[in-house]
Amino acid sequence: MNNIRSIALELWPLDEDLSCRCNGAHQICLRCAVCGYKNNNYSIVDDIPTQQELAQYIDHTNLKPDAINVEIIRLCQEARTYDFASVCVNPYNVKLAKREMDRRTVCSVIGFPLGANLTHTKIEEVRLALKGGATECDMVLNIAELKEQGYNYVLTEIEKIAEICHENGAIMKIILENCLLNERDKIIACLIAKKAGADFVKTSTGFSKSGATVEDIMLMRTVVGDYMGVKASGGIRDTETALAMISAGANRIGASSSLSIIGA
Amino acid sequence: MNNIRSIALELWPLDEDLSCRCNGAHQICLRCAVCGYKNNNYSIVDDIPTQQELAQYIDHTNLKPDAINVEIIRLCQEARTYDFASVCVNPYNVKLAKREMDRRTVCSVIGFPLGANLTHTKIEEVRLALKGGATECDMVLNIAELKEQGYNYVLTEIEKIAEICHENGAIMKIILENCLLNERDKIIACLIAKKAGADFVKTSTGFSKSGATVEDIMLMRTVVGDYMGVKASGGIRDTETALAMISAGANRIGASSSLSIIGA
Repeated sequence: MNNIRSIALELWPLDEDLSCRCNGAHQICLRCAVCGYKNNNYSIVDDIPTQQELAQYIDHTNLKPDAINVEIIRLCQEARTYDFASVCVNPYNVKLAKREMDRRTVCSVIGFPLGANLTHTKIEEVRLALKGGATECDMVLNIAELKEQGYNYVLTEIEKIAEICHENGAIMKIILENCLLNERDKIIACLIAKKAGADFVKTSTGFSKSGATVEDIMLMRTVVGDYMGVKASGGIRDTETALAMISAGANRIGASSSLSIIGA
Repeated sequence: MNNIRSIALELWPLDEDLSCRCNGAHQICLRCAVCGYKNNNYSIVDDIPTQQELAQYIDHTNLKPDAINVEIIRLCQEARTYDFASVCVNPYNVKLAKREMDRRTVCSVIGFPLGANLTHTKIEEVRLALKGGATECDMVLNIAELKEQGYNYVLTEIEKIAEICHENGAIMKIILENCLLNERDKIIACLIAKKAGADFVKTSTGFSKSGATVEDIMLMRTVVGDYMGVKASGGIRDTETALAMISAGANRIGASSSLSIIGA
């Protein structure tokens, strides 16, 4: 993975000899926002959880556009019963989920699932989600801009959304939609996400061609180092797959089949 | 289709004996905004177009989240060459499309493809799209609210967006995502769209389980009458299917396979 170092040096005028200040085990210091989050709890885990412990890794998810209230309420009840990390819902469902979850975590998606909105729209959407009670926001990056090598655009957009989240005590995950990216794109997206101060990189929306893979999780963990979150999502429907993702370096799982995963 | 009349009477305190003022061939006057658009050009057509005339029915579409600039530019070039009705793109691509299309029509999607955003976010997105040069906006309705029978919410949201579009001389299409709706839902969505002042009802996003069907087009045309647009989209890839949709009552086609459809 020597190319991570060389890609980082291509992107930014970094000091080649400066080793990572945040002890993130990175090959080079990106002078990223992660240094500010040394004591976060999004980092890699040493022990593989038991099936019982798995629940705390899972963002229990319902992003169906036709999800009616009773389905969102059931999602929240299950999250409380089994102690899932959060419920992950569409912006429209945030308020209801917050009411049902009380002080527990509600995660909203932003610019979802295409990410092809203007930055201003994403900003408005994240502000409303936070106001509604979300304390985690999963935003889709601008995939076309990444493909166009508009790295400064991508960086600035993530920085702005991350800043708004952090000002409100919320954490921000950036969805890469790996199935539309090549390896170089994925590495660059992870480097940018880290430098921009995102708390997590996340594999997939679950609405495109395919979802999380073990290989992608390993790559993402290698690029972002130990002090940042990696969320595996899309197509994770059983315990075995969830544990494989965690073994590969994921510390959060997005799933709608969460009950099957924990064997409930 | 007697139930259209009875559903309309269930929804609103209408005068049963008042026949449609806009000559829209409706079974009952909804006191809808359509009366204001008597001389619009969104209405049903009598003659089935030749393959050569087909282009003018087509919103030439690229809504891929990873569509790079050269693909959007090519889309616009094709639209100019073959005289398609518009190009339909994601909000992020509106400015580039406008630059390429000059005075021709750019259509932006709004709240796409899930529609599960807060109304305020859709308002911000439509304002930016219009500012960027879009003169048609295809918005996904709040499907969950429709399912919850939150008809006033759905009506108000469409009214607001339609009003912003009309103030700016733009037309507004409302996407129903028929594959997630039952027949009653579809009838109600069409009645609401008409009453709210949308210019078109549109079958599908192309991002869900399935797309346009001839049966749905016939139903939608029956509900909205003659003086409103009906757009068929999702899975239309050849001339035969496009002509079948037009025969059934569609007066606009959304497609990315537009060149195949017109035999270019």
